[in-house]
Parts: sequence; C-alpha cells; structure tokens
Amino acid sequence: MHLASAEGLEGLSIGQLASKLKMSKSGLFASFGSKEDLQLATIERARQIFVDAVVRRGLMAPRGLPRLWALCDAWLDYAGRGVFRGGCFFAAVSAEFDSRPGPIRDRIAALMKEWLSTLSVAVRKAQETGHLRADADPDQLAFEIHSLSMGANWAHQLHGDKGAFDRARAAIRQRLSALTPARVTLTGRDSRKS
Amino acid sequence: MHLASAEGLEGLSIGQLASKLKMSKSGLFASFGSKEDLQLATIERARQIFVDAVVRRGLMAPRGLPRLWALCDAWLDYAGRGVFRGGCFFAAVSAEFDSRPGPIRDRIAALMKEWLSTLSVAVRKAQETGHLRADADPDQLAFEIHSLSMGANWAHQLHGDKGAFDRARAAIRQRLSALTPARVTLTGRDSRKS
Repeated sequence: MHLASAEGLEGLSIGQLASKLKMSKSGLFASFGSKEDLQLATIERARQIFVDAVVRRGLMAPRGLPRLWALCDAWLDYAGRGVFRGGCFFAAVSAEFDSRPGPIRDRIAALMKEWLSTLSVAVRKAQETGHLRADADPDQLAFEIHSLSMGANWAHQLHGDKGAFDRARAAIRQRLSALTPARVTLTGRDSRKS
Repeated sequence: MHLASAEGLEGLSIGQLASKLKMSKSGLFASFGSKEDLQLATIERARQIFVDAVVRRGLMAPRGLPRLWALCDAWLDYAGRGVFRGGCFFAAVSAEFDSRPGPIRDRIAALMKEWLSTLSVAVRKAQETGHLRADADPDQLAFEIHSLSMGANWAHQLHGDKGAFDRARAAIRQRLSALTPARVTLTGRDSRKS
C-alpha cells in the first residue's frame, strides 16, 4: 500500500515486493497468483485501513451535523498524518487508473462512489435532524467536500503544503455554516460556542 | 501529451513513441537525448496548450470579476472537452510525480504554482476593482477554485461524470457570489441580470 500510494499500483510487482519484504518470489506467488490479484488485494487492505481511520471515527460522533463534520475532519486528518506514504492511497491510485479500463479501475471507482455516498447520506441525515437546510443538494455538497479534501491532499503531496488541510477545513466549515441554523454548531447542538 | 495524460509520463519511452509515430528511434533520439528530456519537453508543450486554452481565454475577459470567472470557466471547459485524452494533463502528471523527487516533479510543481498564482492575482484584481469583498483571502479562494476544478476533472475521468463540471461551476459561482456586491455579476458589471 505504501509503495502503491507513492509510486503507483502499476509499479507493484511480485518480484520487487519479494525483495522489499525479504521473502521468496514463490512464497508471494502462493498468496497472490497474479499481479492483478496482488493489486486487488492491496486495494482491499487499503479500504479496511481507510474504513477504520475515517469512516468508523466519523460514525462515533453524534448523528447529524457533528457526524458529517467528523467524517470530513477524520479524512483530512488521515490524509495529513501520513497513514500511507504517498498521501491518500485512493487519490493516488484513482488518478493512476482512471484511463485504464479493467477490474482494477472498476474496483477503485466503486470504492470512491462508496465514500461519496457515505458523505451524501451524512448530509441527508444532518438535514433530517434539522442541522442543515433541507434545500441543500446532498450530492452537490458531497462533491464539494470531497473536492476540497482531495485538493488539500494534492497540495500537501505536491507542494509539501501542510496548511492546505486547514484551508480545506476552513472552506468546508464556511460552506456548512452557511447552511446551518444559528443555534447548531459543527461539534454539538444548541450551543452558542463554535 | 495524450499518452502521458492517460498512461503517465513514466510510461513515455522513446521506443514506444517511435512506434506510435511511425518514426525511427534514432530520429527521436536526435530530438530528445534522454527519456527525461522527452518528459520535460512534453511538459513544456502541454504548458503552451494550457496557456492558450485557459489563460489567454481568461485574460480576454474584462478586468475584475469577469476575468476571474472567465479563467475558472475556461479551465472547466478545457478539462471537459478532452484537450488531452486523459483529462487535465497537469492533474494526471502531478498525481503521478508528487512522490518522485527530481527535475520532472520540480517543473510540474512550479507550473502548478504558476496557475494558483494566476488565480490569486485575478482575485486580488477583482478586489481592487471593487467586484469582490476586500476581506476575502486570495490564496484561500484560489485553493478552493482549484480544488473544485480538479475534483470535477477527477469525477469526469474516474466516473465518466460530465455533470461534475456543472457542479464545480455552481460551487464556484455560489462562493464568488457570496463575496460580491449585489450590483456586480460574474460576466459584466452594474447589471441586475446574472
């Protein structure tokens, strides 16, 4: 995963991995029959780590706006603290595979849809709880949150700009606050503090 | 450029290119001494195309907010109409090279800074013209515009989602309108139409 996030999934080979892990090629072949199996297994393991680092952490927050904000915050934290060596694993491999049709690309695209839909559902729940205005478009907001997060990951990876995560936080906070009744805050409700 | 935008700059080789272009390897070697020279030449040519398609088009609009908006709109148009086969050339190669130190990465990073600074300067000019509120942070706005644009390119490349360009337009328009006096519109001034 660390190799793939930095140098690409296409750069993964059983031979290279065997030498990095000081294992025999035949041992690795026994676990991963082909390069494609190795790539798919890498994606599934990265998904588990992503779910633990971001989704589970987000879902621990109280329902509604606090949960939506916790998901955004956990994503930015995950991308910023180097869970994977090359920043967000999925940002890296989706850019790599978006023009290469096949099972790898399909799996990456499905997982990215899963994340966008997690965000959309969180927006909808925040609307049901009365924390966000009902006329906001959940898919539009999910697109904006996701773009700003990926933009921060990109600026951090390319320019070493750690401040980009705060920029993304500020932009998402501003966007959500504009859609929020005055008494609701991002981390709890019915409080004047924010 | 088309190959690199879809399959990566690292995938460019003089041999492969010679066969695609039906030229001799030695002929291509005479123009590009090394793979790195070929990669750098590809980046410079892509930059010229980008400047023509986006920057020049933006600069033709009247000073101030119309020019800022024209730059955003030209970028989204450029990414959406397939100027390069793999979507925005620079989005693709910056994701590919962000973890690979060296002259290629440095050049890509410098060109991306150039674009972010074109956006920041356009924000500042729009503030000087009184089209945007003076308390907006130009670098923050440039970051947001750039992230939303890259997010649209990403959604289009990975999910084939053409509607993402309209989502980005809507988000940027909403963000700019919130910072704009009522009498100013994105495409001209002192008009009630928008």
